[in-house]
Amino acid sequence: MWRELAPIGRNAGSGGYRRYAWTAADADCREWFKAQALSRGLTYETDRNGNQWAWLGDPLAGDAVVTGSHLDSVPDGGAFDGPLGVVSSFAALDELRRRGVEFSRPLAISNFGDEEGARFGLACVGSRLAAGQLTVDKAHQLRDGDGISLPQAMEKAGYDPGTIGADPERLARIGAFVELHVEQGRALDLSGDAVGIASAIWPHGRWRYDFHGEANHAGTTRLVDRRDPMLTYAGTVLAARREAELAGAVATFGKISVEPNGVNAIPSLVRGWLDSRAADQATLDTVIAGIEQAAKERGERDGVDVRVTRESFTPVVEFEHALRDELAKILGKDGADVPVLGTGAGHDAGILSSSVPTAMLFVRNPTGVSHSPAETAGEDDCVAGVGALADVLEGLACR
Amino acid sequence: MWRELAPIGRNAGSGGYRRYAWTAADADCREWFKAQALSRGLTYETDRNGNQWAWLGDPLAGDAVVTGSHLDSVPDGGAFDGPLGVVSSFAALDELRRRGVEFSRPLAISNFGDEEGARFGLACVGSRLAAGQLTVDKAHQLRDGDGISLPQAMEKAGYDPGTIGADPERLARIGAFVELHVEQGRALDLSGDAVGIASAIWPHGRWRYDFHGEANHAGTTRLVDRRDPMLTYAGTVLAARREAELAGAVATFGKISVEPNGVNAIPSLVRGWLDSRAADQATLDTVIAGIEQAAKERGERDGVDVRVTRESFTPVVEFEHALRDELAKILGKDGADVPVLGTGAGHDAGILSSSVPTAMLFVRNPTGVSHSPAETAGEDDCVAGVGALADVLEGLACR
Repeated sequence: MWRELAPIGRNAGSGGYRRYAWTAADADCREWFKAQALSRGLTYETDRNGNQWAWLGDPLAGDAVVTGSHLDSVPDGGAFDGPLGVVSSFAALDELRRRGVEFSRPLAISNFGDEEGARFGLACVGSRLAAGQLTVDKAHQLRDGDGISLPQAMEKAGYDPGTIGADPERLARIGAFVELHVEQGRALDLSGDAVGIASAIWPHGRWRYDFHGEANHAGTTRLVDRRDPMLTYAGTVLAARREAELAGAVATFGKISVEPNGVNAIPSLVRGWLDSRAADQATLDTVIAGIEQAAKERGERDGVDVRVTRESFTPVVEFEHALRDELAKILGKDGADVPVLGTGAGHDAGILSSSVPTAMLFVRNPTGVSHSPAETAGEDDCVAGVGALADVLEGLACR
Repeated sequence: MWRELAPIGRNAGSGGYRRYAWTAADADCREWFKAQALSRGLTYETDRNGNQWAWLGDPLAGDAVVTGSHLDSVPDGGAFDGPLGVVSSFAALDELRRRGVEFSRPLAISNFGDEEGARFGLACVGSRLAAGQLTVDKAHQLRDGDGISLPQAMEKAGYDPGTIGADPERLARIGAFVELHVEQGRALDLSGDAVGIASAIWPHGRWRYDFHGEANHAGTTRLVDRRDPMLTYAGTVLAARREAELAGAVATFGKISVEPNGVNAIPSLVRGWLDSRAADQATLDTVIAGIEQAAKERGERDGVDVRVTRESFTPVVEFEHALRDELAKILGKDGADVPVLGTGAGHDAGILSSSVPTAMLFVRNPTGVSHSPAETAGEDDCVAGVGALADVLEGLACR
């Protein structure tokens, strides 16, 4: 399975993946998913939001057990974030068939579209639409860097954008959703475990900072006559780090756009995107307020106008305790003590948790590196992940 | 003249010009130049490096007086930087014909290609090639943001890249080169003069800073585990401002490129371009060394590798004193005291000054703003500039 998926959307220069929603690479990933489903005799379908589903048993029977993840990537992302969950889902089904178990509930494997938000700037578009957390109006306003809207991109990829929107009937048919994912930190590595269970997803959001200055000649404009937004940006980047350190949170400026972006021109506009997350809402509020205040103070000094727009926000997600405890019981059946851990990363499971009982399994990542070609998971740990997922699916769907 | 030139390469969104070397907008500017030359009965030609020439009198006679500037622009540049010199050259010739003067030396008007370096990252490519300050080998290595090489771009624009290189025969035929340019600072505005004479061009250069860190997930990577190059970049931007302030110089980070440039990814690489200039070499050396040291110290702290590459450098240019004094005498004939001023901006006149006696006239810029759509010059001042240039050309070519 991995062998066919591995080359899709891989950039030869960086070694990383560029699988953005509704591109050719994304289409290839989707073809791969469909082929995996059909080769196993599963019922294949896409839903109204372009998410893919592969069913064992009656899709309409209700109380289904669903597992899956996503196949798209961040720019130059790693091989595991997303795909490990989808590949492990198919592998777990193969394992259950080897075990000869009998299913008492319908089982489905899913691939949610545009989880990373690399193209349109909003994460988890597929699951957000389904869960009614992204309105059709707002989805229509999403545009990529070339000005192409989400509906245009879907249409070009052969999907009907006219059908997108909340899908409560479909979600009502799901009794439990379990997403397996490579860990994006080092907690399992530090505790020495191959697999863990998620407790909660930290509240997190994205804020766009627009620093408006005045374009001018970099060689001839006196320093006192300048309104250089790059200075305000730089001060804000350092303030974000400082505020996050003080609060025990994380805050990152990883994306920037500059106009006119010329070597000998003071910029007229620097636009920076802030990603920030913390263990609880109050801490995150403190960090965000501190960064905004520092930016505005620095802007006063530089003659630069600072505008802050919250582009997305996800409150804290506590995964359903009953399902989480059930997973812990299944995986701890031989007396093993399975670690339960929080995470700063958003996931489709987090979005769906408002509509459906959801849970997550994490597989150890020895370096903790993620969203990079250096992201990795050991072969033994991946096998352990498949085993754990198979145990969970058996425990849930074969009672 | 202005009316036909004004719409070429103008971006409707920004109101600024995007006239980059060997693009369609550049071709339109070149067509305009050719039409202006032919409509005045001048002998039109392009040289081996694609610079344009319009001759009155015998191009081969030698000791020619040449005036001109450039028609390309920085990204979203203003209407005057470059074009004012070319338009004023044609207007000054019209004025001299009205005066009925007789020319004792050949006169030429020139448009030098790719002065701003907006496309290939190196300024004054046309004059550098002619003066032998850019080797053919190095010119072949120049590439734009899409990977298109300079020879490929020239060929696509219908020029033969096989002929580029030093052109000493042509330069030997020039007795004096005078470039009129809008001032890119506020010295004339502060002194209350419409026109001034250049004394020197500050030494200036461009340095590329590569900050190599480690791509990682912005939500899940602990601050202590990060190697975030955006932090080092931000620290360096602020250090550049500090060093420039201390030394009375200028230093600017106006261009940046980030990989992977994703909202939720700590960058693997931040590349920033530093433009710095000072009144003398020793001051500039101090500033550059101070910025590099600050970058490396901050890099140590952030776990980020900092590499600095000097991409271009132009030593101080003192315009020829004899020609400068002659201009002062011509323009000061009615007892006027014409200001003589230095500038931080590079010009083709600076490049050519190593091969040919060169001088420059500046026209007042009321705001000092340059490399921006807000760049401007008053109509009266433009007329005064044409008058001054006509006086200078008459004084030099009609003795």
